[in-house]
Amino acid sequence: MTRIAVIGASGYTGVELLRLLLLHPDVEITSCVARRNAGENVEALFPSLLDQCSCVCDELDVEVLAQNADLVFTALPHQSAMEVIPSLLDKGLKVVDLSADYRLKEATTYAAWYQEHTSPELLAETPYGLPELYRKNIAQARLVANPGCYPTSVALALAPLLQEGWIDPTNLIIDSKSGTSGAGRDAKVGSLFCEVNEGFKAYGVASHRHTPEIEQTLSDLAGESVMINFTPHLLPVNRGILSTCYATLLKPATTKELIERYQTFYADEFFVRIHAAGSLPNVAYVRGSNFCDLGLVSDPRTGRVIVVSAIDNLVKGAAGQAVQNMNILLGLPEKTGLTVLPLFP
Amino acid sequence: MTRIAVIGASGYTGVELLRLLLLHPDVEITSCVARRNAGENVEALFPSLLDQCSCVCDELDVEVLAQNADLVFTALPHQSAMEVIPSLLDKGLKVVDLSADYRLKEATTYAAWYQEHTSPELLAETPYGLPELYRKNIAQARLVANPGCYPTSVALALAPLLQEGWIDPTNLIIDSKSGTSGAGRDAKVGSLFCEVNEGFKAYGVASHRHTPEIEQTLSDLAGESVMINFTPHLLPVNRGILSTCYATLLKPATTKELIERYQTFYADEFFVRIHAAGSLPNVAYVRGSNFCDLGLVSDPRTGRVIVVSAIDNLVKGAAGQAVQNMNILLGLPEKTGLTVLPLFP
Amino acid sequence: MTRIAVIGASGYTGVELLRLLLLHPDVEITSCVARRNAGENVEALFPSLLDQCSCVCDELDVEVLAQNADLVFTALPHQSAMEVIPSLLDKGLKVVDLSADYRLKEATTYAAWYQEHTSPELLAETPYGLPELYRKNIAQARLVANPGCYPTSVALALAPLLQEGWIDPTNLIIDSKSGTSGAGRDAKVGSLFCEVNEGFKAYGVASHRHTPEIEQTLSDLAGESVMINFTPHLLPVNRGILSTCYATLLKPATTKELIERYQTFYADEFFVRIHAAGSLPNVAYVRGSNFCDLGLVSDPRTGRVIVVSAIDNLVKGAAGQAVQNMNILLGLPEKTGLTVLPLFP
Amino acid sequence: MTRIAVIGASGYTGVELLRLLLLHPDVEITSCVARRNAGENVEALFPSLLDQCSCVCDELDVEVLAQNADLVFTALPHQSAMEVIPSLLDKGLKVVDLSADYRLKEATTYAAWYQEHTSPELLAETPYGLPELYRKNIAQARLVANPGCYPTSVALALAPLLQEGWIDPTNLIIDSKSGTSGAGRDAKVGSLFCEVNEGFKAYGVASHRHTPEIEQTLSDLAGESVMINFTPHLLPVNRGILSTCYATLLKPATTKELIERYQTFYADEFFVRIHAAGSLPNVAYVRGSNFCDLGLVSDPRTGRVIVVSAIDNLVKGAAGQAVQNMNILLGLPEKTGLTVLPLFP
Repeated sequence: MTRIAVIGASGYTGVELLRLLLLHPDVEITSCVARRNAGENVEALFPSLLDQCSCVCDELDVEVLAQNADLVFTALPHQSAMEVIPSLLDKGLKVVDLSADYRLKEATTYAAWYQEHTSPELLAETPYGLPELYRKNIAQARLVANPGCYPTSVALALAPLLQEGWIDPTNLIIDSKSGTSGAGRDAKVGSLFCEVNEGFKAYGVASHRHTPEIEQTLSDLAGESVMINFTPHLLPVNRGILSTCYATLLKPATTKELIERYQTFYADEFFVRIHAAGSLPNVAYVRGSNFCDLGLVSDPRTGRVIVVSAIDNLVKGAAGQAVQNMNILLGLPEKTGLTVLPLFP
Repeated sequence: MTRIAVIGASGYTGVELLRLLLLHPDVEITSCVARRNAGENVEALFPSLLDQCSCVCDELDVEVLAQNADLVFTALPHQSAMEVIPSLLDKGLKVVDLSADYRLKEATTYAAWYQEHTSPELLAETPYGLPELYRKNIAQARLVANPGCYPTSVALALAPLLQEGWIDPTNLIIDSKSGTSGAGRDAKVGSLFCEVNEGFKAYGVASHRHTPEIEQTLSDLAGESVMINFTPHLLPVNRGILSTCYATLLKPATTKELIERYQTFYADEFFVRIHAAGSLPNVAYVRGSNFCDLGLVSDPRTGRVIVVSAIDNLVKGAAGQAVQNMNILLGLPEKTGLTVLPLFP
Repeated sequence: MTRIAVIGASGYTGVELLRLLLLHPDVEITSCVARRNAGENVEALFPSLLDQCSCVCDELDVEVLAQNADLVFTALPHQSAMEVIPSLLDKGLKVVDLSADYRLKEATTYAAWYQEHTSPELLAETPYGLPELYRKNIAQARLVANPGCYPTSVALALAPLLQEGWIDPTNLIIDSKSGTSGAGRDAKVGSLFCEVNEGFKAYGVASHRHTPEIEQTLSDLAGESVMINFTPHLLPVNRGILSTCYATLLKPATTKELIERYQTFYADEFFVRIHAAGSLPNVAYVRGSNFCDLGLVSDPRTGRVIVVSAIDNLVKGAAGQAVQNMNILLGLPEKTGLTVLPLFP
Repeated sequence: MTRIAVIGASGYTGVELLRLLLLHPDVEITSCVARRNAGENVEALFPSLLDQCSCVCDELDVEVLAQNADLVFTALPHQSAMEVIPSLLDKGLKVVDLSADYRLKEATTYAAWYQEHTSPELLAETPYGLPELYRKNIAQARLVANPGCYPTSVALALAPLLQEGWIDPTNLIIDSKSGTSGAGRDAKVGSLFCEVNEGFKAYGVASHRHTPEIEQTLSDLAGESVMINFTPHLLPVNRGILSTCYATLLKPATTKELIERYQTFYADEFFVRIHAAGSLPNVAYVRGSNFCDLGLVSDPRTGRVIVVSAIDNLVKGAAGQAVQNMNILLGLPEKTGLTVLPLFP
């Protein structure tokens, strides 16, 4: 049994990690770190885990973690993550980081969208943990940068078209919608039930920090620099991201042809599901699972293709993908502990 | 008191008309037609109107309506509307039609997206009832074609930019999201609570029937033929449409400049509200009201402008706008009966 | 025009007062007090009021209020209310208080459930502002204690049966469910969207502070001391309270007889609506309105009657009832500004 | 691998059975019967199962089932179930019936609340499949009557108190609230999103068919005939039942004593979780799991105890409990395939 520590156990990503890890056959949780809730039982913070998790929240103590754990998940805000990760690596711990701190390859880009990076020397060695696209880089890493929720939904949606040059990379519009758990468990007026329920809005228009992360992956896939318009919206649901991606086809292609292209590209990927023509993804169909569902429509009137992707932002968009990365790091079958089916309705 | 009949009183648009008309100081409802519910009390169909509406649902009888009413709202599905409207006009009744039957100017376009038109001779004389853009055409009409919900949200969002040629009309992406009341009160599996709640999906991609209606108005504003990508989505809220519109600026403009342009363009329009820079519309802020809220962001990185509009699909997107058109037809102040403020939260 | 000040304008009850008062034909809002938001525009706090409210939030200054206002609504937490109300009265202002501070007649009861009362001398003169039951006491008052949301829903549900002794006052069970706006606009983890949505729970079991307020009114109606079990629950809706009340009939009565009793009792009450046999209230049917809907079922198997009441907690349960009390204080028709119909769906 | 057939696979209970059985290590689904959808792929009906279920919906053919299956789940409406079950038993198939047809011991009671029973001879031999209370009766059965959702939540809530005579069985009030999936997947106006969302109502007051089923179990536990008031309500959530039960204590007991009593009673029951004093169940904490959470409060003012129970109506209230019964019938550990943790948020 590999011993696992979760730092940042008191947020929604944290409890989702616990849900998945508690059912995982090859690991055991040995430490839960949550500064603000130190001393509290995890099951008191999350009664969904009543009788299923005996952990007590700890203060962060790298020495203790080095004794008790083999691998650490850091589910912290950006900046907080890079304050602790180098010392974890120094102790020989493997780390899957769910923050944004090690996702961008260029420290200057990080500085432009976040703040100065305090351990830029780690960026080059740290793989971007999107296994379907970068699996080979992950297995030997000390530190894996688990992708953002929006970027996961967009990269998987556009990879096949970009990689083979079917679409114009200079004219991409990404309109994304996320469930409210993406905003975290912090007590903020904007996340209150009455502010979100029966509402819908765009936010972070032309300024959301996931923009450079998306552009980095799309540029890598296209083999040239890609600049996008990315607009996130807040959905009145707990879980789920749906991204609607608009691209101009460089050569005509029918919906059927596009779907076949995707089926081939993702033929070996258990977690990517391609909808048949006439069917489209819905965040309700992936709830609680690690699936990314994709649907395509070609519009011959305008020469554009519309790709729709759906994930659960807490699973494939965060904790599930992190466990998938952990499985790769540990040499386990990638699906281990991640075969739970979507909860519908 | 002008005497009003509502045909199609048993749907969500119907009950919304009743809500607004019952509070209107200058009209009285004399007839409610709802074939499937003939003989039933309106307040039994809609207990929200308990003790406030003494109407009983009638079968459709044009002779009776000609005796009892001066003006008729037709809240029927397309095709059903054009089966009855010519006979209402023959009796001298004024009609505000909430269906799609008289919105498209070209019978061939109508035929391509719906079916053969059975009274194409009425299309030329029938104004498109979007008062903010076509007010002058409405006052003298016999029949007004009340716009669709999505088209209203899009036309008001893009009119200022298109009319003065600030954006490229050949590269428009419209990503819209509608509350579930837009799907009507018919018992369909896809509209069940458990299918919609906690879900989100695109539908009618590249094929929704509001596409030609939107394109007709945008083409008229641009002075040239416009073709768009329009993608509707289903939101798990009762009411509201949010449209996110992407356009390429032909000359650079800051967010501030764009907002000022909109404030000028809509300076005399009570029902159009422009958000200040940094603030964006939310369907929750227009709930139950006839307002259309607009927000803008200029993205200097990509040279695009993103315009976000929010309406209540049952009010500005249907019944409220229909009452606004009625007010114009009757020579009343346009706001009469429509000053109710949004219900938040 | 009577000049109105709202103290506590930045909460959900505050914005609901503004919504109603802005449409009221006989009053004008001259001051909005919200300490934490002093200096901010009300329409920035609540974009639902965009272009409709020019108020800026003020600090509390009793001298200024005495100059600018004739009547004040205090929408403050308990304890905060009684810190300011005596000084408002001293200035000759009329006050409608939406807090709990002046609802209980006995300062000792208040002390047992809240804390020491700092102006107990005002309790005797202050009427309990439930117009349907205590209208005559209100007209001449300086200060009106606007009832709690749960107590309103329960008192109107049980008044007819208790007043004429049809039920056993010693065996009453009240099971109530409230929408989340009742928890206020404070940023608390328990009020976050993801904590409330798709959830449902009881809270404050056998300890909720509305218990003595309910018992006070029921005791007054019964003419003897009444003790109840009252269990509130948190509903994942923005607005609405539904109370399900269980009582033992002292003499057999059919559902039809009970409904007739209620129709007679409330015959002159515009805001109380009695459902016909076989129909029952739904919080959706009163949304945004000042109505209290009542439904009854007699169960001959057990000899009990079940009374179900529905109100909008922010309207009849708070701001609407406060305006109703204001109308009485000002000698206006009681319905003035309160005739807006429920928003359904 | 035991071969399993699911009759009624196209409803919400059906898809939940599929979700659980597809992950069960000891069974395989060999047949899905859904008359109205015969010929359709299950994954087209429920895209949540995309790529995970290769079944095609069949017509009902008892001969085929006898060849292909060892055990059958019948997820049919009452009456439809008893039309097919005797013939399944004749073929030697074991049956877990999720309908109400074999739950009541007395055919006359069944006739009074439903219709004439067509195979009353089976009632005596058929155990009521609530394992925590009737485990011993289940193992040897041919046919198990899987309990109703409401009755499960109530029986587990009250069993400890009734069995040892701590409460007065003649004065029980049960106020229950169910998520909308309990209404099934039939297209009905009352189950539409816009009718349920932002709404809350009681239904079936003093007449719901689960009443005699609840009374049967409570009477058995109490050792005397019990008559209750049972009021179901419709919650705007997909899943979950919360029952609030009111009983009069025959001897004083503190909350702490009551909780200890429950912990002892359910000490060996994996699926029953007892909340500590001060904590109460929430349907959100059991979502997607087979847990039944219980919380208790003693009210010394009134001498009553309030017991709150929460289950997922589709899992412990239907499909999960059915799999639990299957495990018992097959001699498997009772938790097999049912250890998935609740999905929160």
